Amino acid sequence: MRRTTVILLVVVFVACASVAQDKWYPSRWGADDQRGAANRITPAKVLEAKNLIVRGQTYQLGRVYESAMPLFGTRHYSLRIPRVFGPNGTNLMYYHDEIISGELGQIGTQFDGLGHAGIGDLFYNGNKGSEFAKAEGLTRLGIENVGALVTRGVLIDVAAYKGQAMLAGGYEITRADVEGALKRQNIAIRSGDVVIFHTGWGSQWIKDNAKFTANAPGIGLEAAQYLVEHEIVVAGADTWSVEVVPNPDANLAFPVHQVFIAKNGIYIFENLLTEELARDSVYEFAFMFAPLRLKGATGSPGNPLAIR
Amino acid sequence: MRRTTVILLVVVFVACASVAQDKWYPSRWGADDQRGAANRITPAKVLEAKNLIVRGQTYQLGRVYESAMPLFGTRHYSLRIPRVFGPNGTNLMYYHDEIISGELGQIGTQFDGLGHAGIGDLFYNGNKGSEFAKAEGLTRLGIENVGALVTRGVLIDVAAYKGQAMLAGGYEITRADVEGALKRQNIAIRSGDVVIFHTGWGSQWIKDNAKFTANAPGIGLEAAQYLVEHEIVVAGADTWSVEVVPNPDANLAFPVHQVFIAKNGIYIFENLLTEELARDSVYEFAFMFAPLRLKGATGSPGNPLAIR
Amino acid sequence: MRRTTVILLVVVFVACASVAQDKWYPSRWGADDQRGAANRITPAKVLEAKNLIVRGQTYQLGRVYESAMPLFGTRHYSLRIPRVFGPNGTNLMYYHDEIISGELGQIGTQFDGLGHAGIGDLFYNGNKGSEFAKAEGLTRLGIENVGALVTRGVLIDVAAYKGQAMLAGGYEITRADVEGALKRQNIAIRSGDVVIFHTGWGSQWIKDNAKFTANAPGIGLEAAQYLVEHEIVVAGADTWSVEVVPNPDANLAFPVHQVFIAKNGIYIFENLLTEELARDSVYEFAFMFAPLRLKGATGSPGNPLAIR
Amino acid sequence: MRRTTVILLVVVFVACASVAQDKWYPSRWGADDQRGAANRITPAKVLEAKNLIVRGQTYQLGRVYESAMPLFGTRHYSLRIPRVFGPNGTNLMYYHDEIISGELGQIGTQFDGLGHAGIGDLFYNGNKGSEFAKAEGLTRLGIENVGALVTRGVLIDVAAYKGQAMLAGGYEITRADVEGALKRQNIAIRSGDVVIFHTGWGSQWIKDNAKFTANAPGIGLEAAQYLVEHEIVVAGADTWSVEVVPNPDANLAFPVHQVFIAKNGIYIFENLLTEELARDSVYEFAFMFAPLRLKGATGSPGNPLAIR
Repeated sequence: MRRTTVILLVVVFVACASVAQDKWYPSRWGADDQRGAANRITPAKVLEAKNLIVRGQTYQLGRVYESAMPLFGTRHYSLRIPRVFGPNGTNLMYYHDEIISGELGQIGTQFDGLGHAGIGDLFYNGNKGSEFAKAEGLTRLGIENVGALVTRGVLIDVAAYKGQAMLAGGYEITRADVEGALKRQNIAIRSGDVVIFHTGWGSQWIKDNAKFTANAPGIGLEAAQYLVEHEIVVAGADTWSVEVVPNPDANLAFPVHQVFIAKNGIYIFENLLTEELARDSVYEFAFMFAPLRLKGATGSPGNPLAIR
Repeated sequence: MRRTTVILLVVVFVACASVAQDKWYPSRWGADDQRGAANRITPAKVLEAKNLIVRGQTYQLGRVYESAMPLFGTRHYSLRIPRVFGPNGTNLMYYHDEIISGELGQIGTQFDGLGHAGIGDLFYNGNKGSEFAKAEGLTRLGIENVGALVTRGVLIDVAAYKGQAMLAGGYEITRADVEGALKRQNIAIRSGDVVIFHTGWGSQWIKDNAKFTANAPGIGLEAAQYLVEHEIVVAGADTWSVEVVPNPDANLAFPVHQVFIAKNGIYIFENLLTEELARDSVYEFAFMFAPLRLKGATGSPGNPLAIR
Repeated sequence: MRRTTVILLVVVFVACASVAQDKWYPSRWGADDQRGAANRITPAKVLEAKNLIVRGQTYQLGRVYESAMPLFGTRHYSLRIPRVFGPNGTNLMYYHDEIISGELGQIGTQFDGLGHAGIGDLFYNGNKGSEFAKAEGLTRLGIENVGALVTRGVLIDVAAYKGQAMLAGGYEITRADVEGALKRQNIAIRSGDVVIFHTGWGSQWIKDNAKFTANAPGIGLEAAQYLVEHEIVVAGADTWSVEVVPNPDANLAFPVHQVFIAKNGIYIFENLLTEELARDSVYEFAFMFAPLRLKGATGSPGNPLAIR
Repeated sequence: MRRTTVILLVVVFVACASVAQDKWYPSRWGADDQRGAANRITPAKVLEAKNLIVRGQTYQLGRVYESAMPLFGTRHYSLRIPRVFGPNGTNLMYYHDEIISGELGQIGTQFDGLGHAGIGDLFYNGNKGSEFAKAEGLTRLGIENVGALVTRGVLIDVAAYKGQAMLAGGYEITRADVEGALKRQNIAIRSGDVVIFHTGWGSQWIKDNAKFTANAPGIGLEAAQYLVEHEIVVAGADTWSVEVVPNPDANLAFPVHQVFIAKNGIYIFENLLTEELARDSVYEFAFMFAPLRLKGATGSPGNPLAIR
């Protein structure tokens, strides 16, 4: 056996040992749970959402998927309309379909499931990526387990709180920012809520993709902890990362993803369209979304709705 | 010029002339409209839906997308999980995504948009497929125009009305069936509703794909006309076609698609999961769906919700 | 019938009539031929190629396909390695595959087939795109009809002839250039040859994709006619277009593609790797290529060989 | 640390130790080599191939890629022709391309590279899959390293030797079969050859896909060892596996893949079209193939040529 193998084994050993001390699994919803914070959405939360509908006004929070949109790394999105099919029948039936390819749960408006982000090999509820992530799909934590998310939604307009049209790239939204913005809006976060941040960053979408993806404002570990304590279900934003990028601690890569998804079963919704909610000062609303049931997928594209 | 060209021109001439006599366009929502019956969903309809929520109970109407599902013709669906990305940072960030390809608006649970089905070259509102259907996407009638569909939903359990677990393949649901089933359920269809048929056909999903796709029970032209007159927004079913296949008139290919989509701007939602609604006798509910905003697509995958 | 329809019919009539006067079809290989200039490759040409092999030295003329390569318009190329499959058996069999998507016959090193480029609706041998181009593949002129291309290959180093490392974008290679370069190389083009141009443009591949795709040096209509008269089989180059872009006549879009492919059944091979041939002054060689037999495709990716 | 982790580490340790005893790496071509047996193709082999060309007759050994072809497991192949692009210019330039997706190096006629098959985590030359197999491509052993394969090709018609039109599924071609068939053909295998087996199994292609993929005749470990000793470069066949499936030892899964690819750097070419060679009794020929240079891919589609 070679020396490198020995070293690898020691590293694995230490990693396993240190992770075990964290005690972030099994989850509070049991060792077999695959839905995480979605369990917080009870019929009472659905009715709470219902009661926020007073005008019958809907907002689409999903962006348009198109080839011009900013993409992370080498991910892609392709849509093509094949030649028309037909004619069929004396009624001259003709029809079109589309052929689409891409990392569909992880491009554009995207909902990160519990199989997306891990700490080393450990994912939500202690599931090991090396065991459940198979070529043909995740055998655990797939997005098809999430189900309907109909609950109270809260928009936190941090840009307005800071008096800016757009927060700067790399700006970390602090706990004080969250508390201050909520106070300004005169609302509080409750258990089972979906919380969405408006930073103004989305105004660059397609207009300046290079700047949009270079970094992003967003919550850091402190604000994330605040949201964990307030038992939210989903954290969303008008950025591609929801969390601040780069993290102020240059050694950390997307640590909020780990805290939310892996440790607490909280979902992340990226690239939401928040501009209209912010414009209309809609801070509370019925939030409605159900991920596409893509068996074994890590995430889902989406067009969630806010209704008031 | 060759004789075949002359004949073709004559055919085109006659087709154009006969179509012009139909006067099914411009649409009642104006010559520029691209949303069709979605225009019927007013804030009042949203509030009507709201008031149907009394228990806070949600039903997912979207099926699981998986490689085993039945597909039409040579369409495909592929999902693969690439090798894990990472580690990044001292926090050992690892993540997965998925790579998906397929005719995503026209496989599995699928919502047909107004650019999907035409009569010859003519589509909704008189738009010509040869003009608006481009390789990179439809330039008109794309699914991104539809918007939020939050309205009253109605399940018509025709299987129960006929005292069968599953209607036979090729059975045409008649106007009398619709009226009889509604009477049995003691409800009526109203303008702006989404109407979903339970036929039991979905019980064969994956279990017997060959039988599932060989034909299907569904509405014919007569029942379709009834629904048009009642000003529905969407017609759905637990079948791949919603309409009866084959049509009793063997010369006709998917004529209900033309009546709904092309002539009346009414959407079609295929392969819905209706079993739980039927089991629980949920005949009225809040229906919630918003198509993925896939620019220039003919349809959208989906996981619509029924809430009561 | 509307006035616009009448006008359209007249336009169609005139177009059909004027095209018929061109008399570029049926092809010299008969009205049913689908192989075009590939018919020129006889056993004698194969033996002619054989006799050019004297050193046993091979050159790969195909570029590496990778996500960084320059692409035309919104075309894409994606390769992902899924999670490993296995273990299977007591022998611990593990295996990888890859999932690839893209416009595979029209990205990177690409061989344009006879179904690729047309004049209006007319393609090689008078085939009509509206008839043979179907969503599931071309029913005529598909790349699977081409077959083996083993013949004499000729490199024309126009860059060297002009004393430049790289010809300028938009430079039109003239008939005089072709003749001068051939004279400098002391060789002549013969019927059945594959002719490849070295312009130096390929040196920008990946290094400056924006410049690479903005325009290109290449042959114009005059040089194309020279090659038609000399009865070549394939025209290739180290550019994405082979022909000059933009054409000196600003009203014309890729006219050489039409002359070669549609009118004369001559194939075009784009983005070839010519640098090593030019460096070694290899002007004559055995050329070997067979397109992937992608049923109904318009082109093929490739890694053709030059052997001397 | 949990008990399961301890057990896993022990297993890994033992596996690493036992594999190390095999001493099948580093390869005979050095510890850094990524081309394996392709190194055997010298200029002398190219000239040997040249001299087999006497008639100028070519055979395509690649099958047609089409949606109807048999596929392994859940792999897929999709080709669609998008709506035509154009018109551009006064010359009415119209063009088509195609959109293709699939496991392109591992479907249809396919050339297995050295990153395809491993023994546990160990691949050719001791490379570890966990290290070189990345989501965006293999960082070692990618198919782009192979290069031109122009060499002597040998067809071994085992079906004819056994007096059968088609060998039975699961029939293991023995060393005696190989020697007997070669003696019947009056030829011998030499170092650097490509060896292709004709079993007749390919006659079921598309005609009976279920039977085609259920199992296959092919070489077993004994015959494989014979070919290793004779220093071949590629082993091919008219089956999807080249080796016998199932292996006579039910505990073994594709062991010949491991012997050829991982231990000896010998490539495998599956689903070759051998019928015409067998029909014409072409047992020696110039073999010509160069894999598509798909960066980081495990294999390549292909249309190799046999020339005599």
